[in-house]
Amino acid sequence: RTLRIGLIPGDGIGREVIPAGRRILEALPTSLGLKFSFVDLDAGWDTFKRTGTALPDQTVETLKKECDGALFGAVSSPITATKGYSSPIVALRKKLDLYANVRPVKSVAPTPCFPDPIDLVIVRENTEDLYVKEEKTYDGPNGKVAEAIKRITESASSRIATIAGEIALRRQRVRETTGETARKSMVTVTHKSNVMSQSDGLFRTTARKALEQAKFKDAGVIIDDQIVDSMAYKLFREPSFYDVIVAPNLYGDILSDAAAALVGSLGLVPSANVGDGFAIGEPCHGSAPDIEGKGIANPIATLRSVALMLEFMNQEEAAAKIYQAVDANLAEGKLLTPDMGGKAKTDEVVNDIIKRL
Amino acid sequence: RTLRIGLIPGDGIGREVIPAGRRILEALPTSLGLKFSFVDLDAGWDTFKRTGTALPDQTVETLKKECDGALFGAVSSPITATKGYSSPIVALRKKLDLYANVRPVKSVAPTPCFPDPIDLVIVRENTEDLYVKEEKTYDGPNGKVAEAIKRITESASSRIATIAGEIALRRQRVRETTGETARKSMVTVTHKSNVMSQSDGLFRTTARKALEQAKFKDAGVIIDDQIVDSMAYKLFREPSFYDVIVAPNLYGDILSDAAAALVGSLGLVPSANVGDGFAIGEPCHGSAPDIEGKGIANPIATLRSVALMLEFMNQEEAAAKIYQAVDANLAEGKLLTPDMGGKAKTDEVVNDIIKRL
Ligand SMILES: CC(C)[C@H](C(=O)O)[C@@H](O)C(=O)O
Ligand SMILES: CC(C)[C@H](C(=O)O)[C@@H](O)C(=O)O
Repeated sequence: RTLRIGLIPGDGIGREVIPAGRRILEALPTSLGLKFSFVDLDAGWDTFKRTGTALPDQTVETLKKECDGALFGAVSSPITATKGYSSPIVALRKKLDLYANVRPVKSVAPTPCFPDPIDLVIVRENTEDLYVKEEKTYDGPNGKVAEAIKRITESASSRIATIAGEIALRRQRVRETTGETARKSMVTVTHKSNVMSQSDGLFRTTARKALEQAKFKDAGVIIDDQIVDSMAYKLFREPSFYDVIVAPNLYGDILSDAAAALVGSLGLVPSANVGDGFAIGEPCHGSAPDIEGKGIANPIATLRSVALMLEFMNQEEAAAKIYQAVDANLAEGKLLTPDMGGKAKTDEVVNDIIKRL
Repeated sequence: RTLRIGLIPGDGIGREVIPAGRRILEALPTSLGLKFSFVDLDAGWDTFKRTGTALPDQTVETLKKECDGALFGAVSSPITATKGYSSPIVALRKKLDLYANVRPVKSVAPTPCFPDPIDLVIVRENTEDLYVKEEKTYDGPNGKVAEAIKRITESASSRIATIAGEIALRRQRVRETTGETARKSMVTVTHKSNVMSQSDGLFRTTARKALEQAKFKDAGVIIDDQIVDSMAYKLFREPSFYDVIVAPNLYGDILSDAAAALVGSLGLVPSANVGDGFAIGEPCHGSAPDIEGKGIANPIATLRSVALMLEFMNQEEAAAKIYQAVDANLAEGKLLTPDMGGKAKTDEVVNDIIKRL
């Protein structure tokens, strides 16, 4: 069977890294028995300027009807409210009900700051919280007042915690095959229920309850709890302590960027937007207009996002091949793009990784 | 004139560090011509358990009627919603209209992670955003739904940006006296207006406008802009780039804990809750029940909070004395509490710093 992959480069360096993602899929060894076909899809700021919408219906329809998975690059967005513009990735997550944003953060090698290996994954709720974007503005006694709704539901909190637990189990299985059995599985629930006792309180209690399911308990998954400010502190003080971190949308957004700094570059950090039966791989970095067109964007976040997408399409073997090839490139540390302190071009890094597949 | 200071130790190590704050005030050289009197005030979880309220009216009234400033230790809070309990520090900030939470973060010495000096201050809005705590819970089609209001007003955004600008000016004046004139003053406005275009959009445009006032412009204060996730990333990648960071309440909460990790220990980071004509010094750390009663809490966050409080009471000379004594203790690096990798007791550190006044 041929797997059909939607390619949504978006803006800026999205157009340089998404082709790299396509190349690695095409280069996978035939022994895996996988075939891919591709469809190019529009979204982003340039699309908005051209067509008046940042996410054409056709993009959504094609993904729904034809595709088995997709890759999303990055989009530029206007910093001030622009009539008719709305972030296409936020919209896609909701329209395809991609309820989990999975962001693994793994260190390359010990550094003076972080001598112990960092290997954690942030599982961010992807459909609600302040991202419902229900806002209003009115005139108050002393000028304008704007309000936004933060919405937390029991159902979304339960399913995000459940997938976080499943990711913890999967990581545990992988560690069993590699013999790293000393490490315990743990899911850390992040919240600010000391201030938002109802909304974050609902997230916390629901997530904990979901994690108490027998399948997690029997496997020994530890349930841990952190207030978000203290989480930001501890993430930097002892990152190797963490395994799986589950968080509402906005905290997950902030914490995953913070975690990316721990491993040296956002250019290394992948993500997958995951729903039931569909996944969109998406590098965590943005459209980076400052380096656009120079051919020096780090392709690794995208290549790892391809692997993540494959994992959630149940193609774990193909995923493992890509991870290994990327890790081997990083371990050698010779071909590095400028964000990593090197001089390599995007294509050179991709070529090197393809050779290692 | 005698300055009257309210002392609110709260719970846990709050009871160990607030006495240290009192001691340093009593030990200030008489040449400064300052006298202090003190009043002990209740608040916190123990107070709640004893009296049914975490913030007795008498505490608020005494602060309003008698005090020129105050010191707040830390409080323990229940992790699950507890009928009648509400965070006393959050309430105090609102009741006394202490609209700015000022959190300077300064590195002790170069480290392998951060070879360049870190010297920044986070100015956190202290009265609104999600901290208005207007929440509701209802039954939705798939279980419970909880909503919280994030409220941003033009007036609060404007005054917080104005005080951030004033802090930038004051820091510039201090640098002029010490000859560090190469460093430019900058205020970085943090927001997530790419998603919350109305609420965070209002914060961003209002803050920028306030910073364009002639007094800031003429002094050359640069206005910078960062989306909160990217701010968390950059704060770790290049902390020495930042001078003053202004943020809505919740982002300020998260970013200031994250920034504390940059300088090694939350036990070093002070804050002041500042209103017009009143300030409460408050160490950034919590009540730390794990080390309570051992006499090993780091007093430095509190001593620096005393200095910050004095600054906002226009006692800059006394403040400078405390900062210098603390810096001298840290520069020598011999008497360190366990959070800093040492073995010193709270009292030993306080004695050492008092000697250096
Ligand atoms: C571009 C922006 C809307 C987006 C988000 O906040 O989710 C980005 O920061 C991300 O993390 O994918
Ligand atoms: C204890 C808590 C309510 C408080 C806050 O969130 O403001 C604390 O984290 C702080 O930063 O002072």
